[in-house]
Amino acid sequence: VRLALLGFGNVGRALARLLHDRSAALPFRVTAIVTARHGWWVDPRGLELAQVLRLEELPSRGPRPTVGSLPADALVELTTLDPRTGQPAADHMLEAFRAGMHVVTANKGPIALHLADLRAAAFASARELRFEATVSDCLPVFDLARAALPHAEIHAIRGIVSSTTNHILSSAARGIAFADALAEAQRLGIAEADPTNDLEGWDAAVKATILANVLMDADIRPADVMRETISEATGLEAMRVAREGGRVRPLIEIHARPRRTHAHHLEPTEVKASFGPRHLDALDPLYAVDGWSMALELDTDLAGRIVVQLHAPHVEQVAYAVLTDLLDIASAPRSRSRRTDRP
Amino acid sequence: VRLALLGFGNVGRALARLLHDRSAALPFRVTAIVTARHGWWVDPRGLELAQVLRLEELPSRGPRPTVGSLPADALVELTTLDPRTGQPAADHMLEAFRAGMHVVTANKGPIALHLADLRAAAFASARELRFEATVSDCLPVFDLARAALPHAEIHAIRGIVSSTTNHILSSAARGIAFADALAEAQRLGIAEADPTNDLEGWDAAVKATILANVLMDADIRPADVMRETISEATGLEAMRVAREGGRVRPLIEIHARPRRTHAHHLEPTEVKASFGPRHLDALDPLYAVDGWSMALELDTDLAGRIVVQLHAPHVEQVAYAVLTDLLDIASAPRSRSRRTDRP
Repeated sequence: VRLALLGFGNVGRALARLLHDRSAALPFRVTAIVTARHGWWVDPRGLELAQVLRLEELPSRGPRPTVGSLPADALVELTTLDPRTGQPAADHMLEAFRAGMHVVTANKGPIALHLADLRAAAFASARELRFEATVSDCLPVFDLARAALPHAEIHAIRGIVSSTTNHILSSAARGIAFADALAEAQRLGIAEADPTNDLEGWDAAVKATILANVLMDADIRPADVMRETISEATGLEAMRVAREGGRVRPLIEIHARPRRTHAHHLEPTEVKASFGPRHLDALDPLYAVDGWSMALELDTDLAGRIVVQLHAPHVEQVAYAVLTDLLDIASAPRSRSRRTDRP
Repeated sequence: VRLALLGFGNVGRALARLLHDRSAALPFRVTAIVTARHGWWVDPRGLELAQVLRLEELPSRGPRPTVGSLPADALVELTTLDPRTGQPAADHMLEAFRAGMHVVTANKGPIALHLADLRAAAFASARELRFEATVSDCLPVFDLARAALPHAEIHAIRGIVSSTTNHILSSAARGIAFADALAEAQRLGIAEADPTNDLEGWDAAVKATILANVLMDADIRPADVMRETISEATGLEAMRVAREGGRVRPLIEIHARPRRTHAHHLEPTEVKASFGPRHLDALDPLYAVDGWSMALELDTDLAGRIVVQLHAPHVEQVAYAVLTDLLDIASAPRSRSRRTDRP
């Protein structure tokens, strides 16, 4: 299966390392890497990843290639996120589907904002759209729902999916000031220079939107998620609560409203989604989700309540989530061909 | 897909209710139910489950059918467990494979003790063997490994998979005496009249064996798992630890020894497996796994550390785990035929 990587930052490089280290066991060949500011490299015979990983700037021979022209069976979309518009990632993905490629992305913007269009394009091209990495690195969410929750309905979700705010409030519980914990997250590259996306809950709202729309058949936008800001006052509250044995955690919470009995099955589920600091006691399964760790709790009809946690992931775990999507696509019978093979 | 149920106790009945309630959405027809002491019913056109569920004794027309003669594509093995021998369940399963059926079981004995033989028989017949329910009801373990951990190596596992002992130690933390908590577990049918299997860790050892052999390519037997008994003294210790904010939990722990560099790939992994009471602090992800709840923590190379928890499952969750196995088999292309369709 030939892969085109769009974007080659931390995640793209971690994926390239993984593909290179395990090349003997994996059915993939990277035939193109295209970046916005560091050039591009296209070779239908496959790139030498060890060589690519040593370069800062790609050689950029010939004219800048369009997504649709790339000699690949799957596009791996890893460009920089614009969480307000999901662009240009969404357009790249639509172009890839039109060219007969599968699409795997770690980019939450297009999935939160353009899911219906992307799914329609994937369906029209009989290709797959996968985005396991968008919500919580390689914490299994969509893989889990597909494999372990068939026919089950998820009616409520609680989750810790915002690493920056959970790190800040976890640090507060250990007596570390808000500003110091934030600075550490920025130094490690987890929080951005302008941290408002994280602190005001936009990052969490985008992830809650994906979870609601994909797992609960809702149709909401990030602006529909009620957000409370994580502030210095929240940090002080977290310190106080920790002294009494509790924890303040930044939770997303999504509740499906009961479907009306005679509701048409194609109507989206109505949900109530929120993000904000919540007090948890030690017997709450999300209490121990500390620092950079992430977790989701799914309340279901058939499977009861299931909690999944991922302990302190690194960028390698984001790349691995992308790899699991690619392996899934590679094992599907229709994956090895693209448009040229069809009538 | 035609199903034959072997055993029709609590799990079998819960599965029949599930299949009946969702019959319109599910691709299954139950063509046989065979029990050891309550008769049998076989009808290739399919049994009326609502009617079957009202009966205590099945009509048992004609001679007692053998497993191999049942008109089914998949055998659902739910007979009573003999955890020391795994029999007669293992022989039933081998007979089913010889007759060209897939096999799904909730029966941990045969998987812990006869895995190699069962896998060989499944392979020889090109049929599937599935056992998601054997370790922890519908807590996703094998589904999770297949879907979310491809190419990842699991090098350590910690888990709470023994409901009776976790209930006893959780109750102790709330000040309830060992004998009272055990009596409650017996009254609810979770602990057996003779609770030594649970208290001496045999139940946990059988589950640890399955986890080690399936997820880590080990080749151990339940007797290889070091066991410490959960006793009244453990209950008193749990009370004391709880007063200081900790918890004593009954943990299985499995560690793979590092593989020798030049080890042949077909050699089993050497593991060290144990069961016993362990002290956990509140930031341990297994701390909050209280009462009847279950959890597994998997330490992997590619995916980091993943924890899965299932909150207080009932028998319906065991039946659902069996259903997920059946759905998986039904969606595989080769599932709809059996020996008669092959040359």
